Amino acid sequence: MIEKNISLCTVEWKNNKVVMIDQTKLPNELVFVEYDNYDQVANAIKTLIVRGAPAIGVSGAFGLALAVLQSNASAKDELILDLETAQRILFATRPTAINLGWGLEKIMTAAKTGNSVEEIKDIVISTAKKMADEDIEINKTMGKNGSSLFDDNDTIMTHCNAGALATVGYGTALGVIRATRESGKNVKVIATETRPIQQGSRLTAFELKHDGFDVSLVPDTAVGYSMANGLVNKVVVGADRIVKTGHVFNKIGTYQVATMAKQHGIPFYVAAPLSTIDLETKADDVIIEMRKGTEVTGIGEKKTAPDGIGVINPAFDMTPPELVSGIITEKGVAKFPYEESIPKLFEANN
Amino acid sequence: MIEKNISLCTVEWKNNKVVMIDQTKLPNELVFVEYDNYDQVANAIKTLIVRGAPAIGVSGAFGLALAVLQSNASAKDELILDLETAQRILFATRPTAINLGWGLEKIMTAAKTGNSVEEIKDIVISTAKKMADEDIEINKTMGKNGSSLFDDNDTIMTHCNAGALATVGYGTALGVIRATRESGKNVKVIATETRPIQQGSRLTAFELKHDGFDVSLVPDTAVGYSMANGLVNKVVVGADRIVKTGHVFNKIGTYQVATMAKQHGIPFYVAAPLSTIDLETKADDVIIEMRKGTEVTGIGEKKTAPDGIGVINPAFDMTPPELVSGIITEKGVAKFPYEESIPKLFEANN
Repeated sequence: MIEKNISLCTVEWKNNKVVMIDQTKLPNELVFVEYDNYDQVANAIKTLIVRGAPAIGVSGAFGLALAVLQSNASAKDELILDLETAQRILFATRPTAINLGWGLEKIMTAAKTGNSVEEIKDIVISTAKKMADEDIEINKTMGKNGSSLFDDNDTIMTHCNAGALATVGYGTALGVIRATRESGKNVKVIATETRPIQQGSRLTAFELKHDGFDVSLVPDTAVGYSMANGLVNKVVVGADRIVKTGHVFNKIGTYQVATMAKQHGIPFYVAAPLSTIDLETKADDVIIEMRKGTEVTGIGEKKTAPDGIGVINPAFDMTPPELVSGIITEKGVAKFPYEESIPKLFEANN
Repeated sequence: MIEKNISLCTVEWKNNKVVMIDQTKLPNELVFVEYDNYDQVANAIKTLIVRGAPAIGVSGAFGLALAVLQSNASAKDELILDLETAQRILFATRPTAINLGWGLEKIMTAAKTGNSVEEIKDIVISTAKKMADEDIEINKTMGKNGSSLFDDNDTIMTHCNAGALATVGYGTALGVIRATRESGKNVKVIATETRPIQQGSRLTAFELKHDGFDVSLVPDTAVGYSMANGLVNKVVVGADRIVKTGHVFNKIGTYQVATMAKQHGIPFYVAAPLSTIDLETKADDVIIEMRKGTEVTGIGEKKTAPDGIGVINPAFDMTPPELVSGIITEKGVAKFPYEESIPKLFEANN
């Protein structure tokens, strides 16, 4: 880690191992887990020990770094084959967030430039570590870019967790909130609970409280009430995938938060790095991950619904571009119409 | 009970006692509790052992029936004083639903017509029992009136529990769904979880499954997704209070379900007896009950949020009349503009 100036490090490379905060234990315990096997990383992604699009992108990259250490390959082609196996297993864990595929692909491309097994091992590990460092830098730049959109004494609503715990360490949406505070503005935050996994109460409220923010929790049902009663000035959320038309795929519930914000004239911002933007896929072709019903029919071990009923449990929904006031990235803030503004972010990048 | 043709009886007068389903134990156990003291009934209302506007109206009435049996008064005035004490204690339990005040007032008015202690006791008990019977009859009539608004093969979304468990035994919103099925139409139901108390998963899913309906559960965050993906044809909910302008006060989250329905051109109906309509109070003057934060920061004993954060936990929200496609009552269906249609329901009543 170059940047030590972060208070929670979600995923880290340490002594040839991957160290993660076990987010399923939050907010009651801050527990770190250590993996030396990419299957463990795949399982951690699948079971939400680590979650958040940027964090799972870097976790996937670290998974491949473990794969090169695990491999007994004696020739380059053999090692690439081992890496491809690991890539497939890691990629299959979660289909909607684009960053996972992006992170894995970035490592594979780098790996293929190596000429020997040893060189490939070095390249894979150093590239993965660099991605983790860059993630923090990108978030900090994004935060600065976004902070000018927020005013002193704003109360900002956020949904799910697009914070330090969704990234390597600073956050996308919560990074913007951190940067706004660092710019000298006083802000309060309202976190939505975000059922069924409760990332809002378990993670967002935890990390904001941990960093000394004034944070209040609302059930997801009270978004409309909060807005109708003047309790919210702005909204900022993260994204798992943004397509070039500006359709935003993010945690289930984002679409209705955006709709309510529009109804009340409250600006609704999305903060995400360019790695979250998918210029290839059409909105209608994005696969929405459906998760198991038991996430909704109970909470932890507590059963809260009868047996034998159906459950509809999509992990994400789609927010159409007309509800999005701006997309905050490390290359600036894109505004509607996104088909024009999003490609410009990439031009500036090249 | 005159009408035995109901499958779950939420609150009942039996051998000079009040028998209730303990709804805090659902869906895991169907437990009945028995009270012979109005303080126990007040506590049951406060702790949500019984909930739902019509059910607490009748529970309040039965509370006064216990109060006449508890009283040692030897003169009429003395008994009325005892009843007024009980009325105050029962009324203080929940401020938003109008039916509680209505139920208590109805009993008090009847009590005052009695000429002796014995006569008042008889009047109070028989009036309370009659209110319970009428509640079922009213719901069945309301159900018939509403059923014509629904089509064969509709999938109907409902929020919270406005079912048998919110009334004496048939339901308002779920009564309309029951009557639609009884009219020969095939319907499916989507129940929203309804955090923080989870009346949707614990109660609505339970009672619909109990009665053989095809019911699916969604987290409150998936209302927008369900509508955007064509999974919902109509919405029907109950109400805790409707004012004469057609503003509907109902379980927190109703407002955003209504907003999403409007956005997707999905009819949004409210089913409530005339006793839920408050012709006196203005929308802005209705008190929204704020409930304790621990309902949101944990689930049962399980803590899901860190200590030391704020919580915004309103029990109800207000849905404006322009989002309401119709108000289904035992006297017919009122349509926008409600300031004209609602008074007509009462004219027809007289």
